[in-house]
Formats: sequence, structure tokens, C-alpha cells
Amino acid sequence: MDTGGSSESPAELKKAKSKTPRKPKESILKQKSPAEFFAENKNIAGFDNPGKCLYTTVREFVENSLDSAESVSELPVVEVTIEEIGKRQFNSMIGLVDRERVDAALYDDYETDKARERRLAKEARAQEIQAKYASLGKKVKEATASKGIKGRGEASFYRVTCKDNGKEMPHDDIPNMFGRVLSGTKYGLKQTRGKFGLSAKMALIWSKMSTGLPIEISSAMKGQNYVSFCRLDIDIHRNIPHVYSHEKRKNKDRWRGAEIQVVIEGNWTTYRSKILHYMRQMAVITPYAQFLFKFLSDAPDKNVTIRFARRTDVMPPVPLEMKHHPSSVDLLLIKRLITETTKLNLLQFLQHEFVNISRSYAERLIGEMGPDFNPKMAVKSLTSQQIVRVHQLFRQAKFDDPSGDCLSPAGEYNLRLGIIKELHLDMVATYSGSAQVFEGHPFIVKAGVSVGGKDVKQGLNIFRFANRILLLFEQGSDVVTRTALKRINWSSYKINQMQDKIGVFVSIVSTKIPFKGTGKEYIGDDISEIAAAVKSAIQ
Amino acid sequence: MDTGGSSESPAELKKAKSKTPRKPKESILKQKSPAEFFAENKNIAGFDNPGKCLYTTVREFVENSLDSAESVSELPVVEVTIEEIGKRQFNSMIGLVDRERVDAALYDDYETDKARERRLAKEARAQEIQAKYASLGKKVKEATASKGIKGRGEASFYRVTCKDNGKEMPHDDIPNMFGRVLSGTKYGLKQTRGKFGLSAKMALIWSKMSTGLPIEISSAMKGQNYVSFCRLDIDIHRNIPHVYSHEKRKNKDRWRGAEIQVVIEGNWTTYRSKILHYMRQMAVITPYAQFLFKFLSDAPDKNVTIRFARRTDVMPPVPLEMKHHPSSVDLLLIKRLITETTKLNLLQFLQHEFVNISRSYAERLIGEMGPDFNPKMAVKSLTSQQIVRVHQLFRQAKFDDPSGDCLSPAGEYNLRLGIIKELHLDMVATYSGSAQVFEGHPFIVKAGVSVGGKDVKQGLNIFRFANRILLLFEQGSDVVTRTALKRINWSSYKINQMQDKIGVFVSIVSTKIPFKGTGKEYIGDDISEIAAAVKSAIQ
Repeated sequence: MDTGGSSESPAELKKAKSKTPRKPKESILKQKSPAEFFAENKNIAGFDNPGKCLYTTVREFVENSLDSAESVSELPVVEVTIEEIGKRQFNSMIGLVDRERVDAALYDDYETDKARERRLAKEARAQEIQAKYASLGKKVKEATASKGIKGRGEASFYRVTCKDNGKEMPHDDIPNMFGRVLSGTKYGLKQTRGKFGLSAKMALIWSKMSTGLPIEISSAMKGQNYVSFCRLDIDIHRNIPHVYSHEKRKNKDRWRGAEIQVVIEGNWTTYRSKILHYMRQMAVITPYAQFLFKFLSDAPDKNVTIRFARRTDVMPPVPLEMKHHPSSVDLLLIKRLITETTKLNLLQFLQHEFVNISRSYAERLIGEMGPDFNPKMAVKSLTSQQIVRVHQLFRQAKFDDPSGDCLSPAGEYNLRLGIIKELHLDMVATYSGSAQVFEGHPFIVKAGVSVGGKDVKQGLNIFRFANRILLLFEQGSDVVTRTALKRINWSSYKINQMQDKIGVFVSIVSTKIPFKGTGKEYIGDDISEIAAAVKSAIQ
Repeated sequence: MDTGGSSESPAELKKAKSKTPRKPKESILKQKSPAEFFAENKNIAGFDNPGKCLYTTVREFVENSLDSAESVSELPVVEVTIEEIGKRQFNSMIGLVDRERVDAALYDDYETDKARERRLAKEARAQEIQAKYASLGKKVKEATASKGIKGRGEASFYRVTCKDNGKEMPHDDIPNMFGRVLSGTKYGLKQTRGKFGLSAKMALIWSKMSTGLPIEISSAMKGQNYVSFCRLDIDIHRNIPHVYSHEKRKNKDRWRGAEIQVVIEGNWTTYRSKILHYMRQMAVITPYAQFLFKFLSDAPDKNVTIRFARRTDVMPPVPLEMKHHPSSVDLLLIKRLITETTKLNLLQFLQHEFVNISRSYAERLIGEMGPDFNPKMAVKSLTSQQIVRVHQLFRQAKFDDPSGDCLSPAGEYNLRLGIIKELHLDMVATYSGSAQVFEGHPFIVKAGVSVGGKDVKQGLNIFRFANRILLLFEQGSDVVTRTALKRINWSSYKINQMQDKIGVFVSIVSTKIPFKGTGKEYIGDDISEIAAAVKSAIQ
């Protein structure tokens, strides 16, 4: 840690300092690495508890795979496998001898003989009742059956593997791509599923916290005679990769794609339905992808294999990286663009680094800035005051709205197809809005409303998608839910909001989805442009 | 940026590399500083839009001041001033000549003469109507009066100043305390209002984005003959302080305390009521503090001065820093504790670095770990496998719950006092639970229920506090709201949930408040221990 500004303090300070000695231990300034920050606040990235960690890991891997395949215009093929690993197996993996309990009373789930007797009697009664109900053909909540003694501590471990046909990773970049928080290639201004440069890295941090096992990455280019393999984890304190193995292996089958594997603590029992729901919904919104999902364990009856076939070869266009809209930039961003631009003078800078500023409009803007500006002045020589002037004019001047060309909605056809196929619906109406704008970011809202269907519950069933990812949590606060529940008069469409099986599908795409939180779980209700567009799309 | 793990790659990689030249521009790995991350995702810290930025800035300053005064056992005295700064004044502050519009058609709020005529006619009509209603003594929504033409762009600037009698800051530390994101002194395990080491720094980042003006900090110790003064901002890209001025000034009046001042874009009009509400609620929960709030502008009728007098000298005890509970630590944390401990052997480490492990219990635990462990072994020599074994045993073994001694609830007396005084209530019942535990973190829930009162609306009015801060946003998702609305049978208390004026006050304190998001706006509904405790406290 350097001392920052202290070098700038005048000389007399040093004298003063020697007179008033600092008390020791009074204030210990600590600097945290971004990796430490996210390790300690993992809930803000959707890693709240072991079950949700498993869910979010799957989700991040799947969404990375889709982004990756789409970025090279490949129809995505994604295979996710979750393998349950017993504690004994886990311990043998890390070379730890599994020990029998010796001092039984030390354990949280320790029962005295008497307590055990009482519990078993209670369980027997519960089973009797259940058997009786079952014979009557009634369903009893599973919870009635005792779960037995559940120690708070017994962790469940899972190996999560995700394999895709996406973009290869340059061999030498792999450690830095995975072993640093806040590093990544997704930082341009375009529509992507992931956005925070966290994604897979949170899974890596969680594996360090829960199992201590590194992740494994394999990647191979088309026609490449080797597979890049890397086993690594993150040095959390320094936020740098810690590489165990990084090598080129023979690529016998000329395999092409990427695979990532991580061993984490999780909870399949409580998150099974969320994960399966997620996979099915992703199939709805991504009908041009092929998914294979497997859950493997020692108990064959618990195992799951689900395949979602590709239902169309029509893939939405690859989202383009776009320039900033002048009305959406802040002071910091203008300064950064000035630092990074290759343009020399102010006129070229305005014309080329922003959308919707033509050469003649740039000239008018410069004229309006005042006498100390001129088109030929070196853009990198602008003073702070001058940059404020540019910023103020950007905020006040009129610009055409950005176009939605850089966006890639799932396509009305795809959304309709996905909904019909997955939910076995009777009727579906879909609608696609034109591009609109908030804070200089274009967005498009598409909606589908269905009535009836096999797998749909009574009442409103709301399905929310943003940049083609599914939003599952925090439904109550989301702009889509609130609009569908409160701002739509369903009866005017002859729909009974309580009894009919209504499906509402809303998909929003934008270069900037205003998620609340990095967990990417819901979109705030407070952006009126989006709320209005959602309303009209559903209508 | 260094290359991280690539130094560890075997020599043959270098040969392979020369054969397959990397494509240029294919993947550009970027590394972001934590300051850049939070600048780009400022909404996760509660800086969603200019209005909310103003609100969150006030809130962070007030909460820092309270924490600071309490940490030195001073009864807090906090003065917040918001000064509105017109654009002309702002420009003169930064040395920018205010320019008249020349090319009027360039502006977003440009009206043709015809449009202007139409608007003025409409406004005149609206005013007539309003005058008519006013003469009838009726109140008309202000919105009916036209706000005139409202350009999207016209920004409002505010100088926010917060002065307190809190802990002084060591002169040399000031730049690093404010000029780095993720650096701070609040990282110990204890109950604090702030937690992320962001707080004031987000205001600093927002000032850089919106006005480009640095912040100013003054701080003086008791009996110190100088005031430390520092003007600085953050070099966002490098996450280091950029110091404009750092000096010791004469302290004539022997002032003691701290003052922070920032100039930011904001929106008083839309956030006025939220900010005033916040100040009033803080007075409820902090009756031992004295608050002065001022809003100053060029229009004297808009100005606000509110003083909340101290109503008690009883201050809750200062929260203590506490050791970790063995059932709440993860692998990473155990490794960090091993790195940082001054204890030499395993026995001492277990006994002194955790709560609720006595010497004899530590011996039993070590016995249970297996034959390759012994009490005298050097704790820093533990292998990764051995640490996993310790972790597993921590998860499975039984430990007493942590005590609530380290917590400092507002005190039942204080809560009751605050509620009665501020809301002019008819009746209030308060209850304080005993310390409970989730994931190894102790928490205490206190609740108050009031009926009637002067400033209370009909129906349920829910006031939520966590570690003595007020939660204003995302009310619908919070555990307190959900419990009060859905899990309490009000009629059994002879209370009509719809018609009576009911106030529900719930305060939760813990060493770890499971906030969703860094905005500290709500506590998730998914932690059953907390939900149950809230329910029983309200009952």
C-alpha cells in the first residue's frame, strides 16, 4: 500500500507530525482487494447460501456459454452436469482420511439414547399417517415425513461441469480471464448476458471458500491440434490467479469449444426445482440452442437427464458494440473517452466517438460551446472546465435517440416458438415493441401472453427475461410483475385474472439493463420509460 | 497489469506459442479498479439517479457521523446542510463563463414560437383554475400547475455538508481514508451502520461523475491546536487519492470533530420528502443524538431548518469487536485467521481466535481431528487438507451460541421514547427479544407497535431499522413488511388492519445484517431465524 497523497503534504507538516506522535493501533487502515470484497459480500452476486450458490453457478456458466457461442455465430450447444460428491469421496479427492466419530457427544447432531427413541417413535407415527393417506389416494406434504436428525453442519458437495461450443480462449490469457475479479472482455458497450465481469469468478471464489479446490478449464480452437488446459484458483488477497497447471494437451478428436469445472458446496435438495425451472425457461427464450442437463449421484432414482432440442436454426444477430449516446455520458466517461480516443481534434472526437453527431452538428455544437473552443483544437488539451462545458451542452442539446440496431432481441418468432413448444399452450399472442430509450441507452420490450396450457398454474404466471436471461428471484419488486398485476385491466380482454391460466412473458433487451444489485435478479420499477413500454407491450 | 500465472507455464508452451501467433484484437482483457466498478454500477450502492444520489449521500454522511461519535462515546451532534447551487453559480465556482444560448434550435427544450404560444395559453388556463379552487379553499395538486418546459438536461447542483463531534482522523491517513474504494477501518467483526467501506466514497465518485469537484474534509482532535484540512478526489482508474491540498490550519476556537463537504448533482424536488422522512426517523431511533438539518437556496420560501433535540443522555454501549464463532467461518476465513494470528500452536489458536471454545473443548476437538493433529503443533504449519478437516469439524461440532454482548441495540427505553416523542402517539408497546443466532452471527430483534398518533396514516405504517439505520426503499420485499402484512393476525389484538393508524417499528441489530445488495435497503425474507424472531417480537 503506498501512502498516496502524503507526498504532497508540505514540509512543515512533517515537523508538526514529530511533535504530536500518532497513537499506535488507533486507526488501522486496511485495503481490500476486489476479490476479498466479493468473497465477503457474495450475496450481492447471488451467492447467498449453498443452495443458491449452486443455482447461480449453473446460471453463470450457462449464460457465459450462450454469450460465447453467439459471439462466434455458432448455434449454442450447452451441456451442464452436476455430480453429487459424498463427504467420503470428497475427502479422498483432497487426500484427507475420512475419520469415524470418536467423541460422539462433541457433535451438533448428537442424541442421547432417550432422545433417539422418542424421535424414532415420532417418525414411525408420521409414516403410518402418511401410508394411510396414500392409500386413500391423497397427497401429503413431504415435510410431514421427518427428515431425521439434520445436523446444521453436514455439507453437500457437487462437481459442476459446463461444456459448450463457444469461442476458444487464447491459451496465455486463461489464467487472467478466470483468476482475477474485475477483469474481463465484456466491458464494451453492448448487450450481453453477463455484465459485471464476475460470473464464473464468483463460482471460483465460492469454491475456495467451501471446498478449497481449484477450477479446471479446457479450451480448443477449431482445427487446433492441442487443448489448452488450466487448473487454477484465485489468490483472494492479491486478486491474482494462482496456477496449478497450465498446459497444452493433445486434441485427438479435434474437439472445439470450452469446458469449465468447479467443485463447490451446494444444496441440490432445496434448489433442484429452481435449477430445473431455470433450464426449462432458458430453453423457452433460447430455442436456437441445444441444452443437455444431467444430475448424477450415487442414488440412481435421484438422477436427472433432460435434453432440450434445438427447435430453430434462426439465431438472433450478434449484438454489436456501439458508441455512446451524448446524452448518456457523465464527466468521468467523457474524460475516459478523451484519454482513449485516437482522434486528434475536437471535431473528429465528437463526430466519431458518439452516435448521432454528424459533422455539421458537431460544428454547431462547438460553435455553441463558446469562443475558447474551435473544431481544430486538440481534444486531449481540453481543460477540466472545458470538459464540464461539453458535458453541460450534451445534457441540454437535442440528439436523435439511439437506434436499436446494436440490440439483439430473441426475435418475436423465437419467443412465440419457445413458449408454444415448452408449455403446450392453447393460445399465445406476442408483440414486439420498437426501440426506445432511457438515459441514452436503447431498449426493446417484447411480450407474449398465453392462455391455458399444460404446465401452467391458475392465475398469472409471469416469466421475466432481460437480455435473454431468465429472472427468477425477487419477482415481487420487478417492473414486469408490478405492471402485470397492477396496471393491466385483464377483464377488458375477457380474461379472469384469478381463474384462467395466464402466462405473461416479457423480455427486455438493452445495452444497459438497470438491474437492482449484481445478482441480476430484478429490474427496478422506478424507470418510467421501461414501465410504460412494458405496459403497452403486454396490452 | 502483470501477467499473473503465465510465469508458471512450462517452457514448451513458449515454443508452441511461437508456432500459433495470437490473433490481434481478438480478446482484449481489461482490468478494472474497484473504483471503476462502483462508478459503473453505482446503483448497487444506492446511487441510482441524481435524486437518490442526494438522498444516499446525506444518509451515508449522517450514519458515518453517528458511528464516529459513538465510537468515542460522545453523544452525537450532527449538522447536515444542503445548499442548492444554481448553474450560473456552479459555473463560476469552477471558473467557467456562463454562456447565453446562441443557436437556440440546438437545445432539447427548444420551442417554436407557435408551440410556445400554445403552452403559455395552457398554463394561463391552469392557473385560472387553480386560483378558482384556491379561493374555494380547496387544495389542488401542484402538478396541475405547469412546470414550464422541462429540458431533460438541466442539472441541479447541491453542496452537502455534514459536521459532527465524532472521532478525529489522523492527519496523514485522511487521503487514504477517503481516496480509495475498499479501504477503511470498519472491517472488523462488529455491529456498525456502514459495512462496505464505500459510504462516503460513493459520494466522492458521484461528485467526480457529475460535477468534477473534489471533496473537502476537516478534522480536529480535542485540545489540538490545528485542524487537518484536505481537498481531494479519487483517481478512479488507479483507485488512489488525488490530493489538491492537505494542510494543518489554525484551530482558534479549539473546535473538535469532523466535517465533510461535497458538491454533487442531485434532485431536491423529488427527494425532499424522503430526506426529511429519513431525518425524522433517525431522530426516532437515535434519541441520544442531536440533529440539525438545513436546506438553503436562493428562494427563501423553499428553505428548511429542522432541529431534533436530544431527548436522552442514555447512549447504548459501544459495540465491541468480537471473535468469530466457529460455526460461521469458511475455509478462506480460517486461512486468513491462521495467517494473522499471533498464537503459535493449534490449541492456543482454537482457544483464543474463536468464541465459545474453552481450553478443554479445544483439546477434545483436536483429539477428534485425528492422529496427525496435536495441541502443540504449529498452527501455521497446517496443510490445506488439515484446514479442511478443521473446517468440517467446526461445521459438525456443537458450540454454544454466540452471546449478544457485542451488540448494541438502541435500547427498549430509547426506542419507546423516540416513537412517542416524534409521532405524538396515543399508545405504544415495545418488546425486546434476547440474542439469537443465524450462521454464527448473533442478532437481537426489538419491536414497537403503536396505535393512533398525529403524523400516522391509516393502516399499517412500517418503520424498519437495522443496526440503528433506517431502511426506506424496497419495503415490499423486506422480512419485516412481509411478516407484518402476512403473518400477524391483527384482529386477534382488536386492531383493524385497514382503518386503525398502526405503527410497526422493528429494529434488528447484528454483527452481520443480511442485506440484499450494498444499498442496505432491505433484509431478505429467506432467513427463517430472523423471520421467526421478527414475528414473535411484533406479537
